[in-house]
Amino acid sequence: MAPQGEGSDASGEAMAIQAEQQPISNILLIIAMQTEAMPLVNKFQLKEEPEPGFPKGVPWVRYHGVYNDLNINLVWPGKDPSLGVDSVGTIPASLMTYNSIQALQPDLIINAGTAGGFKAKEACIGDLYLVSDVAFHDRRIPIPVFDLYGVGLRQAHPTPRLLKELNLKVGKLSTGDSLDMSAQDEASIIANDAVVKDMEGAAIAYVADLLKVPAIFVKAVTDVVDGDKPTAEEFLENLAAVTAALEQAVTQVVDFISGKCLSEL
Amino acid sequence: MAPQGEGSDASGEAMAIQAEQQPISNILLIIAMQTEAMPLVNKFQLKEEPEPGFPKGVPWVRYHGVYNDLNINLVWPGKDPSLGVDSVGTIPASLMTYNSIQALQPDLIINAGTAGGFKAKEACIGDLYLVSDVAFHDRRIPIPVFDLYGVGLRQAHPTPRLLKELNLKVGKLSTGDSLDMSAQDEASIIANDAVVKDMEGAAIAYVADLLKVPAIFVKAVTDVVDGDKPTAEEFLENLAAVTAALEQAVTQVVDFISGKCLSEL
Repeated sequence: MAPQGEGSDASGEAMAIQAEQQPISNILLIIAMQTEAMPLVNKFQLKEEPEPGFPKGVPWVRYHGVYNDLNINLVWPGKDPSLGVDSVGTIPASLMTYNSIQALQPDLIINAGTAGGFKAKEACIGDLYLVSDVAFHDRRIPIPVFDLYGVGLRQAHPTPRLLKELNLKVGKLSTGDSLDMSAQDEASIIANDAVVKDMEGAAIAYVADLLKVPAIFVKAVTDVVDGDKPTAEEFLENLAAVTAALEQAVTQVVDFISGKCLSEL
Repeated sequence: MAPQGEGSDASGEAMAIQAEQQPISNILLIIAMQTEAMPLVNKFQLKEEPEPGFPKGVPWVRYHGVYNDLNINLVWPGKDPSLGVDSVGTIPASLMTYNSIQALQPDLIINAGTAGGFKAKEACIGDLYLVSDVAFHDRRIPIPVFDLYGVGLRQAHPTPRLLKELNLKVGKLSTGDSLDMSAQDEASIIANDAVVKDMEGAAIAYVADLLKVPAIFVKAVTDVVDGDKPTAEEFLENLAAVTAALEQAVTQVVDFISGKCLSEL
């Protein structure tokens, strides 16, 4: 993602420019849930790494393979060691992103996953979004400047050609650690001008920005947040079908990336 | 903290028992804000580490020194590189805790900091709490088992002797990424039976549990959440005075720990 007003030394800038002009070879796919991950693991014929480069005790899972000359690693945060459910949300996603960037030095991060969509912003079940901006909607700190820090607005790496080529919608993503939406969350999501809502994106963007790795976000709509059905019910009902659509979209994105530089996306 | 129903192999258990019976020698103090950190840095005469063992780009700061035969590292997440405010909240705290555990292999983590208190649970400004349990109040996932994962209840390492010796209150801590409190947050905090509320504790507990490092939590009340004054105003008003009280309490805790094993706390 584009750094926002941060200091960077000349050698760092030179390296960044060089990276922009070399073909992308090393992609890190970050996925929150096993159901979302497995269609992509199968599509790219990735194999689970027995030694993933993660410390003992963490449940994170890494798959690896080569597809279209691209070195692809796919990570998902695994099952919670105590409770056995997928380790969703911002904290496991942040930790796994942080460790994976250090271990794998990716050229580009793709965070793919399901999301809630807002029909007020014309999102429908099954819609696929390439995200322009990410922010948080559940970090309210009403002290000047801390408020902006809480919102944590960041831009995805710019992909004008990718957007022109593929049939994806564009919109802003808002992230929070709850599957449901409180009145305060809704107000923040509206302030964030978001069309999709997830539980990891802005956290992954934060870590990627901290460690200076460009990141893009592909989100598929499993439920209409401002609709009539309860989110949890609609989410579970559509999860399988929508993850199939997500697999197709991510494959198109990866096919497009193959052989291109960051500046050509 | 106490593992909750997790599988652990025999050698791991043997190592844990051995650790329980050796004197604590290596303490990691985790602090969220510079204002909270500096009195402790001065008290323990810690020096900033020019090579803290953190990757390039992260703003985290590490201080180190020896006090009463204890090897003390104090870390705080530093200023946000873009906005210049303290990197508060669960995500930086998680990342820094994760990296610090791996780099420093502490015997015990002490998370010390300010918190909001609930007068309905008899908390007053300046009160010092040793935390019994931590949980989240802003991770609502209304799907069976995921709901428990969201709450993320964990126990602090048991410290019955420490409690008997020192004049600290005992209570439960609830963590969320907002300084204010929505109606949903409040309902979750009540369900968590919490007397104090912070922005990092449960996240630090999560990482410590994942990497099997015992953790305790000392929280000083800067504002009454269910009182008349706005939280942000009261927080800023009391921050300096309360951090002085926090310094005294943490010093007492560290003095008590010196020469003792984990099982003697």
